[in-house]
Amino acid sequence: MPVVNNARVLFSSIPEGYPVPGKTTTYNDSQTIDTAQVSLNGGFLLKILDLSIDPYMRGRMRDPSVKSYAEAFEVGKPLTSHGVGVVVRSENPTVKKGDHIYGILDYIEEHQNYVIKEDLRDLQVIQNPYNLPWPTFIGVLGMPDQFHLMYDRLRGMEGVLSSKTKTAFVTAGAGPVGSLVIQLAKMDGLKVIASAGSEDKVEFLKDIGADVVFNYKTSKTSDVLSKEGPIDIYWDNVGGESLEAALNAANIYGRFIECGMISGYNNPNGVPVRNLSNIFSKSLSMNGFIVHRLQKKYATIFYEFLSPLVASGKIKHKEEVRQGLEEVSDFILAVQKGTNKAKAIIHVADE
Amino acid sequence: MPVVNNARVLFSSIPEGYPVPGKTTTYNDSQTIDTAQVSLNGGFLLKILDLSIDPYMRGRMRDPSVKSYAEAFEVGKPLTSHGVGVVVRSENPTVKKGDHIYGILDYIEEHQNYVIKEDLRDLQVIQNPYNLPWPTFIGVLGMPDQFHLMYDRLRGMEGVLSSKTKTAFVTAGAGPVGSLVIQLAKMDGLKVIASAGSEDKVEFLKDIGADVVFNYKTSKTSDVLSKEGPIDIYWDNVGGESLEAALNAANIYGRFIECGMISGYNNPNGVPVRNLSNIFSKSLSMNGFIVHRLQKKYATIFYEFLSPLVASGKIKHKEEVRQGLEEVSDFILAVQKGTNKAKAIIHVADE
Repeated sequence: MPVVNNARVLFSSIPEGYPVPGKTTTYNDSQTIDTAQVSLNGGFLLKILDLSIDPYMRGRMRDPSVKSYAEAFEVGKPLTSHGVGVVVRSENPTVKKGDHIYGILDYIEEHQNYVIKEDLRDLQVIQNPYNLPWPTFIGVLGMPDQFHLMYDRLRGMEGVLSSKTKTAFVTAGAGPVGSLVIQLAKMDGLKVIASAGSEDKVEFLKDIGADVVFNYKTSKTSDVLSKEGPIDIYWDNVGGESLEAALNAANIYGRFIECGMISGYNNPNGVPVRNLSNIFSKSLSMNGFIVHRLQKKYATIFYEFLSPLVASGKIKHKEEVRQGLEEVSDFILAVQKGTNKAKAIIHVADE
Repeated sequence: MPVVNNARVLFSSIPEGYPVPGKTTTYNDSQTIDTAQVSLNGGFLLKILDLSIDPYMRGRMRDPSVKSYAEAFEVGKPLTSHGVGVVVRSENPTVKKGDHIYGILDYIEEHQNYVIKEDLRDLQVIQNPYNLPWPTFIGVLGMPDQFHLMYDRLRGMEGVLSSKTKTAFVTAGAGPVGSLVIQLAKMDGLKVIASAGSEDKVEFLKDIGADVVFNYKTSKTSDVLSKEGPIDIYWDNVGGESLEAALNAANIYGRFIECGMISGYNNPNGVPVRNLSNIFSKSLSMNGFIVHRLQKKYATIFYEFLSPLVASGKIKHKEEVRQGLEEVSDFILAVQKGTNKAKAIIHVADE
């Protein structure tokens, strides 16, 4: 049965606030593909298995004339994101049938069943010595978690984890980034305060060892930090009110690691922060980063360090997997609103 | 004539917005002092010569229950700030008559004619090998300028001034901090964009070599930076709108040095910044600092490096000197509003 459906999820229009399923992005199954005959022109044919749904995707749903770190989605074309696929045919000598491929930014996995790639530019063949499930490579071992290397780098850079560094605060703690940061901080012996947006997620924060956990929708971040702070490290995935609370609760020489600010992604005016004067009055540092600027530098050490910890269960992780490209649009909205249960993954197809 | 007036400037009430001369602070000449007879209890008697009026003083006019880097002024007591005095009598063996004394934060020069000090805690005897005028030590060589060491430190820390660092933007460029930073940046071969709030000040920015100068009250910062940027270093004395413009105009890996945010000092609600997402999307760093945390570490190298450059005229500087403690309250307001002409100094008395 070489002629099969090639379902796609298309970017259809630029949203104002939250993306609207069926309007911002649409599921489309009008295409077919002859997987045995389609011309590869020296490239290879990839069957998409699993796709990552991440907060940063909202930033790509913009007017393409606005420059940013990740390219804008193109109206009428399939979405792209990190993902894992398997090679079903190849004319490229560096890639063979059965290879599993992970994609980095820009030239990554399309939201469709099949895609033809020219070469491995911005893609990599996954080495899987511990036989981990493939979705692991877009969950705990996926793009977001490679952020941990930045954590590590910061830690080493100026001896942050001196005896004076005692307390870390992590927002979006149940997400793939936050949950890994929490576990690394606990390995370093820090007291960890962590927040999330549902009771389920707060339970997970306890499971992974955070010392102080709370639901920011029912407890005020500033109240928790007043009681449990001051904080020496703030890992920011949220911005806005959480960042304001963290600035007020920061210790002298506190370090803020700016990984994301989801509170502002769906607000065209941005979310104001009014107490930045803490940066100088407390001699704080803030460092922002984007994983794809560091990925090539850190990928090898990242997999070597983290894969065995994941395989042995020392690092815990949690995914919410939904089935089929039909679910992409709703899942994107859930991630923006924080109503997903854990790291969001679309299982597109079995091998 | 040993019995003389001891005029004082008292902190009288906590202001809401801008300080109000005669209400927030009041001039009071009801005291006298017998300079020949007053008991020193092993300390020394200092005659105040020159006092510094600085933006940060607004932050000390607060409810003392609110903690911050500089202690709150006490209602009913004289203001304090950096300054220079001369010893007129001493019972302390480490201090002799005729010594000139400079004060660091907390235990610094009172806004009154005479003050008795117990010891040199947080004070230092000024070494003046180049016979510079005493006000120089609270102007270009005063507290604010010691910030340059932080600039230097940042510069060295990660090779900021690599070949990729081309453009710096400095706000409050005509002030003692900004004007020194501009001149140091020019020594390093950078293109310097600088802003100030009056035509006189903008003229001074030209005099000291800034490449692009503008009055932020008549030109929009964001327009200037769009044309002249992107910027690799932002030296922030202002916060608010200037900081937002700098975030939008920053280059990837830009460095923000957070020295002050005067735009918010007189606004009880703070000034919002809405585009902090640039910190992660552009991998920016922001470092805040307060001079008194570094002063002891850097004071010697600072004076050794800068004094000859000032003495030879290689580093230019400008002060606005007003005469007498009666002028303190108005001058404080002028500095908060930016209507002063240059670094604000009160000449209290001749030797």
